[in-house]
Amino acid sequence: MASVAQAPIAVSLGDPAGIGPEVIAKCWDNREAFGLPTFVAIGDPRSVAAIWDGPIELVDDPRQADAAFDYALPLIQLNVPQADIPGHPTVGGAHTSLDALEIAVGLARSGSAAAVVTGPVSKEQLYGIGFQHPGQTEFVAERCGVSPGNVVMMLAGPTLRTIPVTTHLALSEVASQLSSSLIESRGRAALRGLQRNFGIAEPRLAVSGLNPHSGEGGQLGREEIEIIEPAIAALAAEGWRVTGPHPADTMFHSAARANYDAALCMYHDQALIPIKALHFEEAVNVTLGLPIVRTAPDHGTAFDIAGQDRADPRPMSAAIRMAAVNAAFRAEAA
Amino acid sequence: MASVAQAPIAVSLGDPAGIGPEVIAKCWDNREAFGLPTFVAIGDPRSVAAIWDGPIELVDDPRQADAAFDYALPLIQLNVPQADIPGHPTVGGAHTSLDALEIAVGLARSGSAAAVVTGPVSKEQLYGIGFQHPGQTEFVAERCGVSPGNVVMMLAGPTLRTIPVTTHLALSEVASQLSSSLIESRGRAALRGLQRNFGIAEPRLAVSGLNPHSGEGGQLGREEIEIIEPAIAALAAEGWRVTGPHPADTMFHSAARANYDAALCMYHDQALIPIKALHFEEAVNVTLGLPIVRTAPDHGTAFDIAGQDRADPRPMSAAIRMAAVNAAFRAEAA
Repeated sequence: MASVAQAPIAVSLGDPAGIGPEVIAKCWDNREAFGLPTFVAIGDPRSVAAIWDGPIELVDDPRQADAAFDYALPLIQLNVPQADIPGHPTVGGAHTSLDALEIAVGLARSGSAAAVVTGPVSKEQLYGIGFQHPGQTEFVAERCGVSPGNVVMMLAGPTLRTIPVTTHLALSEVASQLSSSLIESRGRAALRGLQRNFGIAEPRLAVSGLNPHSGEGGQLGREEIEIIEPAIAALAAEGWRVTGPHPADTMFHSAARANYDAALCMYHDQALIPIKALHFEEAVNVTLGLPIVRTAPDHGTAFDIAGQDRADPRPMSAAIRMAAVNAAFRAEAA
Repeated sequence: MASVAQAPIAVSLGDPAGIGPEVIAKCWDNREAFGLPTFVAIGDPRSVAAIWDGPIELVDDPRQADAAFDYALPLIQLNVPQADIPGHPTVGGAHTSLDALEIAVGLARSGSAAAVVTGPVSKEQLYGIGFQHPGQTEFVAERCGVSPGNVVMMLAGPTLRTIPVTTHLALSEVASQLSSSLIESRGRAALRGLQRNFGIAEPRLAVSGLNPHSGEGGQLGREEIEIIEPAIAALAAEGWRVTGPHPADTMFHSAARANYDAALCMYHDQALIPIKALHFEEAVNVTLGLPIVRTAPDHGTAFDIAGQDRADPRPMSAAIRMAAVNAAFRAEAA
């Protein structure tokens, strides 16, 4: 689906001591088997060379990546004083990961790259250098001039896409943080994202309930009646195709999944349990609501296995493929 | 795995106006394709005849079922004044469903039946006739002289078994209802059930966290530290193989599932989302902690489609097969 004329995908290596460089190098190794479009890595080439003996071609501009991609991993080099060692995160590595992210976003903003795929970073290390954002998503949003409140995280796999309304909250706080306006804004961003990134003209959104059996008519909680149903009605009144609230336990089997394009879920695990149970190696984190396409593999730095040739490149390859598909849909619509 | 000498499985038809009679008749139709052991239905034969034109053989005792099973659905008839109509539940039908359940449990208690499989009943109708239990499970427990607090519900599919610690609670009440002692007692019942019903000598139990990422060391909720970890330690101190708390989103993919025999989950949807996403047509509700084997399909009466020949018999067939397997393991151990 990726257009022939598409610019390369910019892929930040993430923390140089994590598994980012390894999985990105393995993606280049398997570029044909994985069906990958041209991409260009951004970071310290020594972090790749530390775990991989394949060819690297340093480039200054993504436009040079197409010619190089057949025979080497194209890489835009950052000036980094000290090389990092896999499995040993440092403050310097956090700076490197942030610089790579910033350049990748800039390339996508300018159109030199078709999309951004972000390698995993260490929030702990980033906080150590004064990083003020909860994660890469919010940083990217700010660099794009978008309020973090208007971007949403979608987890997308081959047969299921889910969007959590609330994310990193203790379970006991979920009910008090839910509101109709939050569900509406997340739902709207999800629906527009299905149009822009997935080319679905009239997307169908299935909204989950919060409680067992969607509250059984108020017997097991009233959030469905008081918060979720009004949000669904408001979205429907805008002309969107929205159904629910659906009991969460019966909305993720294959026949149910055929009825919608994405599921809007009320909390983190309600969205992430089904996508990871069904599509663990293929689930991609897609940020919707940005002027650029940004995807990421849904795993962390995995410092404990970095440098051991044990990291699975399939999530990163799925993220790169989806970035290209999303960018192609946006280009078609533009 | 079912022993040749095993007594028949007693299957209560459930509410005569629901889909119970239909799916049980279809199980007999497909007894060879489904690999079903001999079973005997219990209820009003008119509720079967209303939706099925196959042969029914009335029997007085499960021992007569073996001879009949080859050519007819063996059925123990209840005296019911008025026949029910599919899709139209009545108070009389609720009485019939309860009588069938009571007889089925009695047959299993006496050893005339190897196990009980319960067809779906209508709680709403049962409450109308003064039924005091939350569901069939508690009724069966009482008839077996077991405190409902000591039985647990397991959802069992081909590659996953889950047990919810809390069940029909509003999500906002889950955290306040969790306690170490509740997790321990549910965990113990689950582990003993894995030994008795599944023949696993040293069962491995994986315990989930409550919060996203298992609370991230207390950053996203302290229940893991204060409630769940002490319960795991207590069970481990008794010699059980128990791990966790595991982040719920990463414990249900296929590689993770290979590390345990059952997952102990903190709330309803945490247990039911993954089992139904992975095994919707094959998930069986198994009651552990009883002196008898009892299973049930994990669906309701579905009055809205009753009598239309649309009900899927696969969940009921999975429940009957699992009842036979569970009974065989118990017989081997006895």
